[in-house]
Amino acid sequence: MYPVKSRAKKKLWGGRFDGKTSSVMERIGESISFDKRLYKQDIRAGLAHAKMLSRIGVLSAEEFRQIESGLAAITKEIEEGNFRFIPELEDIHMHIEYRLTELKGDVGKKLHTARSRNDQVAQDVRLFIMDEIKSISPLLITLLEIIVSKAKNSVEIIMPGFTHLQVAQPLRASHYLLSYFWAFFRDFERIRIAYDSCDSMVLGSGALAGVNYKTDRLFMQKELGLSSSSENSIDAVSNRDYILEFLFAASQFMIHASRLCEEIIIFSSVEFGFISLPDSLTTGSSIMPQKKNPDIAELIRSKSSRVIANLNHVMILLKGLPMAYNRDLQEDKIPLFDTTDQLRISIEGISEMISGLEFQTKNLENSLKKGYATATDLADYLVSVKKIPFREAHELVGRLVSVCVTKEKNLFDIGESDRKKISEHFSGDGYFSAISLENSADKKDVFGGTAKKRQIEQISLAERKIKDLKKIKF
Amino acid sequence: MYPVKSRAKKKLWGGRFDGKTSSVMERIGESISFDKRLYKQDIRAGLAHAKMLSRIGVLSAEEFRQIESGLAAITKEIEEGNFRFIPELEDIHMHIEYRLTELKGDVGKKLHTARSRNDQVAQDVRLFIMDEIKSISPLLITLLEIIVSKAKNSVEIIMPGFTHLQVAQPLRASHYLLSYFWAFFRDFERIRIAYDSCDSMVLGSGALAGVNYKTDRLFMQKELGLSSSSENSIDAVSNRDYILEFLFAASQFMIHASRLCEEIIIFSSVEFGFISLPDSLTTGSSIMPQKKNPDIAELIRSKSSRVIANLNHVMILLKGLPMAYNRDLQEDKIPLFDTTDQLRISIEGISEMISGLEFQTKNLENSLKKGYATATDLADYLVSVKKIPFREAHELVGRLVSVCVTKEKNLFDIGESDRKKISEHFSGDGYFSAISLENSADKKDVFGGTAKKRQIEQISLAERKIKDLKKIKF
Amino acid sequence: MYPVKSRAKKKLWGGRFDGKTSSVMERIGESISFDKRLYKQDIRAGLAHAKMLSRIGVLSAEEFRQIESGLAAITKEIEEGNFRFIPELEDIHMHIEYRLTELKGDVGKKLHTARSRNDQVAQDVRLFIMDEIKSISPLLITLLEIIVSKAKNSVEIIMPGFTHLQVAQPLRASHYLLSYFWAFFRDFERIRIAYDSCDSMVLGSGALAGVNYKTDRLFMQKELGLSSSSENSIDAVSNRDYILEFLFAASQFMIHASRLCEEIIIFSSVEFGFISLPDSLTTGSSIMPQKKNPDIAELIRSKSSRVIANLNHVMILLKGLPMAYNRDLQEDKIPLFDTTDQLRISIEGISEMISGLEFQTKNLENSLKKGYATATDLADYLVSVKKIPFREAHELVGRLVSVCVTKEKNLFDIGESDRKKISEHFSGDGYFSAISLENSADKKDVFGGTAKKRQIEQISLAERKIKDLKKIKF
Amino acid sequence: MYPVKSRAKKKLWGGRFDGKTSSVMERIGESISFDKRLYKQDIRAGLAHAKMLSRIGVLSAEEFRQIESGLAAITKEIEEGNFRFIPELEDIHMHIEYRLTELKGDVGKKLHTARSRNDQVAQDVRLFIMDEIKSISPLLITLLEIIVSKAKNSVEIIMPGFTHLQVAQPLRASHYLLSYFWAFFRDFERIRIAYDSCDSMVLGSGALAGVNYKTDRLFMQKELGLSSSSENSIDAVSNRDYILEFLFAASQFMIHASRLCEEIIIFSSVEFGFISLPDSLTTGSSIMPQKKNPDIAELIRSKSSRVIANLNHVMILLKGLPMAYNRDLQEDKIPLFDTTDQLRISIEGISEMISGLEFQTKNLENSLKKGYATATDLADYLVSVKKIPFREAHELVGRLVSVCVTKEKNLFDIGESDRKKISEHFSGDGYFSAISLENSADKKDVFGGTAKKRQIEQISLAERKIKDLKKIKF
Repeated sequence: MYPVKSRAKKKLWGGRFDGKTSSVMERIGESISFDKRLYKQDIRAGLAHAKMLSRIGVLSAEEFRQIESGLAAITKEIEEGNFRFIPELEDIHMHIEYRLTELKGDVGKKLHTARSRNDQVAQDVRLFIMDEIKSISPLLITLLEIIVSKAKNSVEIIMPGFTHLQVAQPLRASHYLLSYFWAFFRDFERIRIAYDSCDSMVLGSGALAGVNYKTDRLFMQKELGLSSSSENSIDAVSNRDYILEFLFAASQFMIHASRLCEEIIIFSSVEFGFISLPDSLTTGSSIMPQKKNPDIAELIRSKSSRVIANLNHVMILLKGLPMAYNRDLQEDKIPLFDTTDQLRISIEGISEMISGLEFQTKNLENSLKKGYATATDLADYLVSVKKIPFREAHELVGRLVSVCVTKEKNLFDIGESDRKKISEHFSGDGYFSAISLENSADKKDVFGGTAKKRQIEQISLAERKIKDLKKIKF
Repeated sequence: MYPVKSRAKKKLWGGRFDGKTSSVMERIGESISFDKRLYKQDIRAGLAHAKMLSRIGVLSAEEFRQIESGLAAITKEIEEGNFRFIPELEDIHMHIEYRLTELKGDVGKKLHTARSRNDQVAQDVRLFIMDEIKSISPLLITLLEIIVSKAKNSVEIIMPGFTHLQVAQPLRASHYLLSYFWAFFRDFERIRIAYDSCDSMVLGSGALAGVNYKTDRLFMQKELGLSSSSENSIDAVSNRDYILEFLFAASQFMIHASRLCEEIIIFSSVEFGFISLPDSLTTGSSIMPQKKNPDIAELIRSKSSRVIANLNHVMILLKGLPMAYNRDLQEDKIPLFDTTDQLRISIEGISEMISGLEFQTKNLENSLKKGYATATDLADYLVSVKKIPFREAHELVGRLVSVCVTKEKNLFDIGESDRKKISEHFSGDGYFSAISLENSADKKDVFGGTAKKRQIEQISLAERKIKDLKKIKF
Repeated sequence: MYPVKSRAKKKLWGGRFDGKTSSVMERIGESISFDKRLYKQDIRAGLAHAKMLSRIGVLSAEEFRQIESGLAAITKEIEEGNFRFIPELEDIHMHIEYRLTELKGDVGKKLHTARSRNDQVAQDVRLFIMDEIKSISPLLITLLEIIVSKAKNSVEIIMPGFTHLQVAQPLRASHYLLSYFWAFFRDFERIRIAYDSCDSMVLGSGALAGVNYKTDRLFMQKELGLSSSSENSIDAVSNRDYILEFLFAASQFMIHASRLCEEIIIFSSVEFGFISLPDSLTTGSSIMPQKKNPDIAELIRSKSSRVIANLNHVMILLKGLPMAYNRDLQEDKIPLFDTTDQLRISIEGISEMISGLEFQTKNLENSLKKGYATATDLADYLVSVKKIPFREAHELVGRLVSVCVTKEKNLFDIGESDRKKISEHFSGDGYFSAISLENSADKKDVFGGTAKKRQIEQISLAERKIKDLKKIKF
Repeated sequence: MYPVKSRAKKKLWGGRFDGKTSSVMERIGESISFDKRLYKQDIRAGLAHAKMLSRIGVLSAEEFRQIESGLAAITKEIEEGNFRFIPELEDIHMHIEYRLTELKGDVGKKLHTARSRNDQVAQDVRLFIMDEIKSISPLLITLLEIIVSKAKNSVEIIMPGFTHLQVAQPLRASHYLLSYFWAFFRDFERIRIAYDSCDSMVLGSGALAGVNYKTDRLFMQKELGLSSSSENSIDAVSNRDYILEFLFAASQFMIHASRLCEEIIIFSSVEFGFISLPDSLTTGSSIMPQKKNPDIAELIRSKSSRVIANLNHVMILLKGLPMAYNRDLQEDKIPLFDTTDQLRISIEGISEMISGLEFQTKNLENSLKKGYATATDLADYLVSVKKIPFREAHELVGRLVSVCVTKEKNLFDIGESDRKKISEHFSGDGYFSAISLENSADKKDVFGGTAKKRQIEQISLAERKIKDLKKIKF
């Protein structure tokens, strides 16, 4: 690695200052330990800026080539681990500028013409989020595909649907799985909106008022492949909405994920036994050989609190902050970076869980029966077939359930004589047809309902939606 | 007011239950104290549901007419303050159903056919948010218009732009004002997205699995003027994304508002004296006659914390909640209702403040001079006109500033002899032209910059944007 | 009710102001809609202040008597619902002062001598929290007593203990219940600390600098029964730590409560069936007669998010607020009042649930067996009795569990021949003694452990702790 | 560095598991990247545990010596950077156990007798927080000393006190500084309480039920220098109150710090000019040579949002988590570790700022005059000396202020003739004595007030408090 030149220790903004920077100021002020992660975006934006400077005559063709090759060399150094990070140089922007000057001489400094760290960091972070979304969105599409694929194989499985964590009604497992399809589908849309929020060229805003050069902003916009340029330079450097948008979209996803994880944890308990996770996703206990813990679901559930708190962090940070740039903003990147990491790994984790889980159909059926999941259907049968007034039907079924509870039976195995004691109507084939789990499901024959043909309809719809998503160009 | 019939005390879901509901359960379980606010939406959705039931033959034409007139009567009772709210009836849904039955007999109960409180409340809240946005969005457009109007009258005013709350560069006041135009413009877009998130017909989802009737969901969708119907009934009753969307959009607005309020508070301090607020918006002190406190700005700044916390509330509430409906969701309406109120009054408050504030130009100028706002321009002048290398120019200006600080002068009133001691270049008309506040502003001649012609350009652009917004149909 | 005099419309701080207060300012500025709840404390503190003023000669004996009888009359009016609340009078302090003047003439105004709304509201809120804690703490002691009482009756019940929501080890139910005793016991201590944080006399701080009178602060301190007086008047009016302390203590309780509620919800599911709640605490479903929903637990779980958000609210509100009093602080009372209500009802709700719940011992036993809860004990037996190396023992038991899983058996009903195929050691009485649920519990014979004698020890300890708590004087 | 043995790849809890751990599970499950920070505490607690095992005969004397020397060697390896961290070994506990076994053979595994990772990590984190507080509390005492020392030198300085960021009343600068003394003093107390919350021995709780050995918990308690042992093993492994306590105490400090930083930022603006910070604590701008930015104050203000969010994070994480140990808890350490770092550096930063700031007395005086800070005193003078009714006095002063505003004068330089036009009483020496800044301050002669003698009293009191703090033994 190359040696550090002593002048690195002189701050770029030294000028008027007599005193030295205090140790605590140095430690509190450095951001290179985390913002080095922006190196790619900083170099990409720097290159577009240089090209523009060359175009408007601030840089000669030769100077531009110097900068271009210098930035390429720096990229290589960083990616090969040969770049020297020096706390005194504070942040990634100064590191790159300083190193460029080391490599190429004073032309390196000219790169900072018509630019400020204020518009620079705003642009870098926008590009960073866009890059992250570009790499995260295919993972999310894969998750959606996994759900649909699993749903296709689960149409025939009947499972209990819950309200208040009490067995409510029979659901086709495909229906249950697809309920998350729609939640995650909305998350995709939300992340796409966050992408659009970032998609603006803010260079040329300078410190806050614009710059004293005939900066060609449209050129830079095209060079960076962005859709628009910011309309107000003050807003451009103080705006952090796009970070909030992304953190909110991520929080939404994590909340959905936490709900699914909660269910996976409950469903894979010994008592429920609704699903089993593959060994590759669970852990055992050092002293309890039978344990098969859904740690991955617990960790993702935990990460939802982390991401919600990251959103909370940036919101509190921004609250009451005057325009335009304040140093407070330096730390908005910490929750941002953490969120992208948590989001990515959580999508992967959810994908593997859904892909690997297996429904334990026998336990599902037991639970449906034990939970009297078709009691309502039985009441409906009394009303529609036996022409009994609704409220009376409701009370008859209620009494039958009470008897079952007392005798530790369910609607399926309670004896006909016991049934008849309550009502003559509780007999014959009609009774069993009325309490049939499959029939119950298939009677929910409404768009969005759990009937088999509706499931097939919904699966097709989901597949079409995925096809549409794949056409979206980021 | 009509008398309460005793059977109101019997819970609709009584059935199997022997015991009475405990007092704490009654107090903790009631939501009528806040959800009565949904009465309009509940009745509107109920009517659409009844019309559909009549269409598919569940209700006869006469029965429908009974329900229609009953719901109209209830609306009137509520709006005239003659409706009796009974804690035992828990929520607005049961109140309306119960009263309908009181008024019209058993047909009232038939309204609940093919419906559950789970899909009902989800629909009501969606309609409520849409109604709120319909009434809030014109207020937001008015705010945008006020900003543009104020900006138009402020192009000639030069004020200090700040970074780190230190004077940085001269800004045209229009530029400053418009920076909030763009922030609030994005908020409008965000609120519009929240509206779209609500715009879905979820009736027919039942408790969670769909309903046992040939419900015509498309008919209800059209009847309610909605754009789509939910694709998955489980998701439909457990999804609360649209609440989060709205709370997030409101939080974004409130964060922007808090930043503006912070500035208004600081700018209207005696020391800054940049702006004055009209008496109608400030308060005095009971023991200090000279005080003119920007209470309205402080209160809105405070409300930003309230709205952020409301978002936090619902996020925490949803975290780890299993599907589909859980009673936890009952309280999501409290932060929602509060947020709509805070958002509305804050928009109004911001509008009045911006409309009524007056810039104190003399103080603005003093501050610009005292803050050496054109020191950078002077350095640029040395570079571009006097051909002095940037870093040297930077240091010369730095030294001049130091002398000014010592002598308690500024760049405008420091004597020429003092200037010349530092550099011969600090003399002549060129010097004053270089430090001119107006010139400094007008050199920022880049799209989005503070130059006068750019301000005129931005004002036109803003006016066009408002025109576009007004075309949006909610 | 008495008529409103027109001068009520003139603000007390009118003085210099020309303009009228704007409508939005009136609506945003009023706090009487919520701070009327402080009337008792405001009157109590006002009376102590008046007594002091009389003592130092600012009020004559007759004037004091006038004020005293006026404040008594106002108290009566408020409590009997005859007090007129007028939005123009903004807050409870001005209401009382204004009404006092109406009733008693100019002497009413003299009450405000040497006092400011800034120190007044700080004192009122401190007294309010103390009053709330005085009435909440006995409820908390009752909850602790209920837990101990239930634990005493549950020593003989063995239930599964969970980690990762997987059956881990047998626990005595008393042990499980007492785990919440200690959590709530810490909450009591925490609430006591919050009480102490409030226990300070801040009157005499004036607006922020102290007052221009020879105020006898020590006299007022004693009069109000407080332990100390604030040491710095600026801090006294800007400090809101005591609100945060209380909100934090309440959040802690609510987090504990949410964890218990989560368990109650899971434990009362059909699949677990570990506990049953009394009908008086559960609700049914209008269309599903068999449902018995643990709504109260869901609602309290939900309220935990509400209280955490209330804490978040005040923290965000205070962040970055300059000294001393800012109008932002007006709204700190909203989350405070809400929190006291949620805390109180949640304590009551938890108490009733614990008091009313019944363990379903058969299901507990089934779950323990199904969850191989004593597999570890079996491994320990191999090590300690059969002298098999730990890791080998661990693997043998693991294999036995695998066979059980395959054959849908548990350690209790798997045939001896199957056991012997894995190891000769899995036979004889020793085997059953090793897997005995009771034995497993009683081997945890360590302070804090689940062994029966340790349970008896812990119950005594808990009883002693309650006795100590009852001695605490608030 | 030593080579990694391949068996490290076999998970300790492997047993029954067929499949391999998935890549995402490995990445999501590892915590060694952050929990290695607990190595000291893990080794300390491990040694106490080993000593106890040796005492009760589970380990021979020789075995104990092996473990002791092994743990010492590991400490050395870690501190010298020679310890190999292997993601497959997941966490610090398994790293140390595995390495111990590598170094010393099977005796290493015996260390885990009568211990679980559940009680182990709970103990480690408790010890960690205690260690952090031990090292942070002297920093906090230093901060308190710096404040008192600065206050001692600032008694003679009169500065404006603000409410609503409007000049309210004259304050002695010592009074202002000491207002933060009391805030930070309460923070010390709060951190001390957090320390006590950690001060409990939880080893012997095992996974959750206690352990199957005659563990001598009292011995370990004494060995670790702790004050008590946990009373309930379930609570011991699931309780995270002590983390919340610490995060809350840190949040309180950060909120106080954010308020001070806000004031430092405002006070060091060009417009206020109340204080100047030393160059060593400020930064300049790369393009604006005159800037002297209070970055350190901005960064600490920013960090307050970070720490509040860390508290929010753990609260959300814990909400609704069932007992006893869940893997969610793994990530509670991330916000904890971050908070200790932010707290420490913020205390240091605040200390340096207060130590280095200088009051600009001329600007303070200008502001007091411009803000009519003694207008109230003038009104009081009219009342007490001139015997004018309060309300009339109030209005006369109000009118005088209005004239001053119009003429751009203040109470000190407005001409006597102008004054007399309003009232004859506004003349003579009495007038100047009435508006004197010093007199105004010294009239606040009440305990806690801003009068000079009260300042001296308060400084003594603060010094005594510091002396008391220094006696506290952690």
